[in-house]
Amino acid sequence: MASSGDSNKGDQLVLLDFWVSPFGQRCRIALAEKAIPYEYSEQELLGTKSDLLLRSNPIHKKIPVLLHNGRPVCESLIILNYLDEAFPSAARSLLPSDPYARAQARFWAAYADKIYELGTKLWKLKGDAAAQAKEELVRVLKNLDGELGEKAFFGGEEFGFVDVAVVTFVPWLPSYERYGGFSVEEIAPRLAAWGRRCGERDSVAKSLYPPEKVDEFINMLKKIYGIEFINMLN
Amino acid sequence: MASSGDSNKGDQLVLLDFWVSPFGQRCRIALAEKAIPYEYSEQELLGTKSDLLLRSNPIHKKIPVLLHNGRPVCESLIILNYLDEAFPSAARSLLPSDPYARAQARFWAAYADKIYELGTKLWKLKGDAAAQAKEELVRVLKNLDGELGEKAFFGGEEFGFVDVAVVTFVPWLPSYERYGGFSVEEIAPRLAAWGRRCGERDSVAKSLYPPEKVDEFINMLKKIYGIEFINMLN
Repeated sequence: MASSGDSNKGDQLVLLDFWVSPFGQRCRIALAEKAIPYEYSEQELLGTKSDLLLRSNPIHKKIPVLLHNGRPVCESLIILNYLDEAFPSAARSLLPSDPYARAQARFWAAYADKIYELGTKLWKLKGDAAAQAKEELVRVLKNLDGELGEKAFFGGEEFGFVDVAVVTFVPWLPSYERYGGFSVEEIAPRLAAWGRRCGERDSVAKSLYPPEKVDEFINMLKKIYGIEFINMLN
Repeated sequence: MASSGDSNKGDQLVLLDFWVSPFGQRCRIALAEKAIPYEYSEQELLGTKSDLLLRSNPIHKKIPVLLHNGRPVCESLIILNYLDEAFPSAARSLLPSDPYARAQARFWAAYADKIYELGTKLWKLKGDAAAQAKEELVRVLKNLDGELGEKAFFGGEEFGFVDVAVVTFVPWLPSYERYGGFSVEEIAPRLAAWGRRCGERDSVAKSLYPPEKVDEFINMLKKIYGIEFINMLN
């Protein structure tokens, strides 16, 4: 059994994931930043789900799941918290050490989920509902831009917890811009620059796919599997 | 400025709250369990919101907000995490110390939010949508019952983080039962017994209101202010 003191080189980590999932990508980036070795296990989401996934996350039946010596941890932000707490001697922590800064980081990371939720509504819905989703998404992006301010990263000088949580949505923004008819560069220029800055990091560059791939994926889902499928990604 | 090491007797805590909010009540129970003194500040939610609330939570504009030496922490589960981390020498911790157990506690506490979300749909919606919400709520309650199993509390022998997160919905269940036409005692008997067990604790008994008060509140909202208002409570 792994516990705070003894989680390290003998541990076996497996990440159940799906290539384009921004929630799975959060875990990949976190593991890379912390230099923790793991096995990546691509899951079949379009067909029958694996017994391993269903057994590991019986409640939500969704990726990402981190298996640590066989024991599952579910939900991307909970996995990020867990990695910090279970691997205290890893290359680095993602959460800051100050309790107040940690609370703020958790607040903004959870808030970032709205990007995906509203972005999905944008291309799923029509008319007033889509217009409302666009308005809310613009507000969310502006709020994140305001929180970022003139800092290099959300936590200050160092790439951290909130950056990991937000950056995986960056490749989805061009599709959202097109569906919503707005420009991130115009409404949230500091966030746009931050996205480019994050993209220069190895951990990020190696975990994300180009916007064209994300757009193809959205189109594929819309055409073949019906729009409900996109909910399976988180 | 408070930080991990020096948060204690000199600190000033103010909780912006609203009497019947299950999210605010989580904070009240946590503060009572930890024996941390604070000032309770009832907020006006039916009329104009206070400048203090709007300034403290400009993003969501919602209670609960914990002001710690003037600095706001928002979102009930983030506040619970914060209290454990900022007051390490308080009477007790709510989260377990083992990282894996902490991750599981965070998972189930977040899952509990679905009770409120689905319960609200139950009395807000009609027809198929209400029937679907009922089905999902029954599943959520059964899953919580299964997770609880034969344990006294979610974390084992001791009342802890998940218990605090779930118990504030207990007074809402009789209303949900009536709207949905189901019995918690039948579908989740261990959860029902756990609810009664929790109710015997001082911290819980002093923070919650009887189901009749919750029901009156729901009815009042439906009649006077329109059903959208209930979203303001979390």
